[in-house]
Amino acid sequence: MTTIAVDCMGGDHGVGVTLPACRLFLEQNPGAFLIMVGLREKVGHFSHPRATVVMASDVVAMDDSLEVALRRKKDSSMRVAIEQVKSGNAQAAVSAGNTGALMAISRYVLKTLDGIERPAIAGQIPNATGGATTVLDLGANVDCSAHHLLQFAVMGSALVAVLSNEESPKVGLLNIGEEVIKGNEVIKKAGELLRAAGKSGDLNFYGNVEGNDIFKGTVDIVVCDGFVGNVALKTSEGLASMIGAFLKAEFSRNMFTKFAAIIAYSVLNALKKRVDHRRYNGAALLGLRGLVFKSHGSADVLAFGNALSRAYDAARNNLLDRVQVRIAHAAPLLVPDDGTGDPGSGLASKT
Amino acid sequence: MTTIAVDCMGGDHGVGVTLPACRLFLEQNPGAFLIMVGLREKVGHFSHPRATVVMASDVVAMDDSLEVALRRKKDSSMRVAIEQVKSGNAQAAVSAGNTGALMAISRYVLKTLDGIERPAIAGQIPNATGGATTVLDLGANVDCSAHHLLQFAVMGSALVAVLSNEESPKVGLLNIGEEVIKGNEVIKKAGELLRAAGKSGDLNFYGNVEGNDIFKGTVDIVVCDGFVGNVALKTSEGLASMIGAFLKAEFSRNMFTKFAAIIAYSVLNALKKRVDHRRYNGAALLGLRGLVFKSHGSADVLAFGNALSRAYDAARNNLLDRVQVRIAHAAPLLVPDDGTGDPGSGLASKT
Repeated sequence: MTTIAVDCMGGDHGVGVTLPACRLFLEQNPGAFLIMVGLREKVGHFSHPRATVVMASDVVAMDDSLEVALRRKKDSSMRVAIEQVKSGNAQAAVSAGNTGALMAISRYVLKTLDGIERPAIAGQIPNATGGATTVLDLGANVDCSAHHLLQFAVMGSALVAVLSNEESPKVGLLNIGEEVIKGNEVIKKAGELLRAAGKSGDLNFYGNVEGNDIFKGTVDIVVCDGFVGNVALKTSEGLASMIGAFLKAEFSRNMFTKFAAIIAYSVLNALKKRVDHRRYNGAALLGLRGLVFKSHGSADVLAFGNALSRAYDAARNNLLDRVQVRIAHAAPLLVPDDGTGDPGSGLASKT
Repeated sequence: MTTIAVDCMGGDHGVGVTLPACRLFLEQNPGAFLIMVGLREKVGHFSHPRATVVMASDVVAMDDSLEVALRRKKDSSMRVAIEQVKSGNAQAAVSAGNTGALMAISRYVLKTLDGIERPAIAGQIPNATGGATTVLDLGANVDCSAHHLLQFAVMGSALVAVLSNEESPKVGLLNIGEEVIKGNEVIKKAGELLRAAGKSGDLNFYGNVEGNDIFKGTVDIVVCDGFVGNVALKTSEGLASMIGAFLKAEFSRNMFTKFAAIIAYSVLNALKKRVDHRRYNGAALLGLRGLVFKSHGSADVLAFGNALSRAYDAARNNLLDRVQVRIAHAAPLLVPDDGTGDPGSGLASKT
């Protein structure tokens, strides 16, 4: 039995989206159970044979500071959902709320895995192969050492291995050129570590990739620090929005273009589907002693349902154990040797 | 009289593109003169009343190391073109060659301006307003201090003021959130410096922007380090290529979709024009004692012509003087106070 805890209050639309998405998810997954967390007046009426409703007295707002979310709202729906994972009642939690708060509370409640200093956010971006490229970190860590990037690579490999059934997914290091001499000092050092991990069999390391490779689908996983990953993601969203708005405006310009839009409908619809981030909604917070998935705040029922499905797939395929196994195997490489970070709980000595 | 020196050998297509583009440029700009640099057998036959041909004995290859380009090819077409600017024969140089080599040779031959430690590459990206956002740095500097980012902001403002006739263009700092507390230490410090420059009248500082703002056109200039800028640019190119390839494949799928493509032709053509990077070809190398413009290596005749036009506009509108005036005015802010860089040639004491 696999149970997912859902923060029903998070996101731009709250229960208007989360409750119908949960109901649909339960119908589509006869083996799944949900723990639905929210304010009594918002979720109290929800009833399903495979759902338990758990009350929370507070809600983390999208603009709450970490301080407020973490210290003053100890009975928020977000926190209570994560505590369901901590206590073992649920195998994963899903929230569409404030990303920073979700990461901070998850880290506080669940703690990080042995050997991991920094949890990371791993999301999927649709690529030209018809699949998606997993990119991490998407914004949890604005400054990363080379060892952090190696940890992201190991965790991302475990995620893709579990969710895409690809035992040895290809990892690329995001850089500004393919040559090993490119990039800043952190990136060059990360390249060395990743090559070493490739040689020791801990990773399938492809080499450096550039921004356009995310969309080419050159590799399964692209590793970068959270600043760069966030900029790449939002830049792409901005371009996709611009193209979408432009096509809409041009096709509604006059009678002729409106007619053209009808004729071209199937193609435009296919394009929309292809770049539809809703299909890939549900970013994983990796490196914690428990599974947490983040839905986009603007998610609709379809998108939130996809985040639930990803969490469910990860949980029933034991993503957590598989991340831990890979981390343990790569442990000798993961210990910083240059004072750039704390080796966590001393999983391994440098060998 | 404004003269532009052209490296006719650079780029993927060499003289096949540069010579026809130069001829067209001369026809369209009756006040312009060109100094065309290349191998005798490639450019020796070119003749025009407003063009001088200058021979070079070598060519910098796209994959030459900086060492080779700088030390072993001292008579390359790229270097000879830049030397025309140094000697005052030309007011700007244009090359479609190896970006790293172009920056290194430009820096070596021309030197940096007083108060500037790091030259930057400033390019234009089309945005939703129908205009373009100027983004710098696009890859010259993989590690930047807060002071470098401030210098980029001042130089970018001068560039946009000259080329877009917008006296006080809006500057945004690329970050992973709008709030001033977002970002890493360098970005937060850069935000402080930019706000101070805004208050002292040296800049029109808008505040933090995110990746999607590049395409929204929220500001005229987006400032970031070269690693982030390069990733953002290449990620956008990758997404645009993916969408282009997808539309092409979908519209040629069958008779019906081919018919739809004919009907939708005007719209698709307008989209192509809108996101056509050829229109915005010609990135400025800013911060040098001379104007140098970089064309995309894959430029065709139209694109290379646009790079020539941008260089010509910059030269006849005295971009160099205007950058210098702005830098001098902002000098008290540009001097590092934290040992992160050399204040150049001691333009100003800290006040």
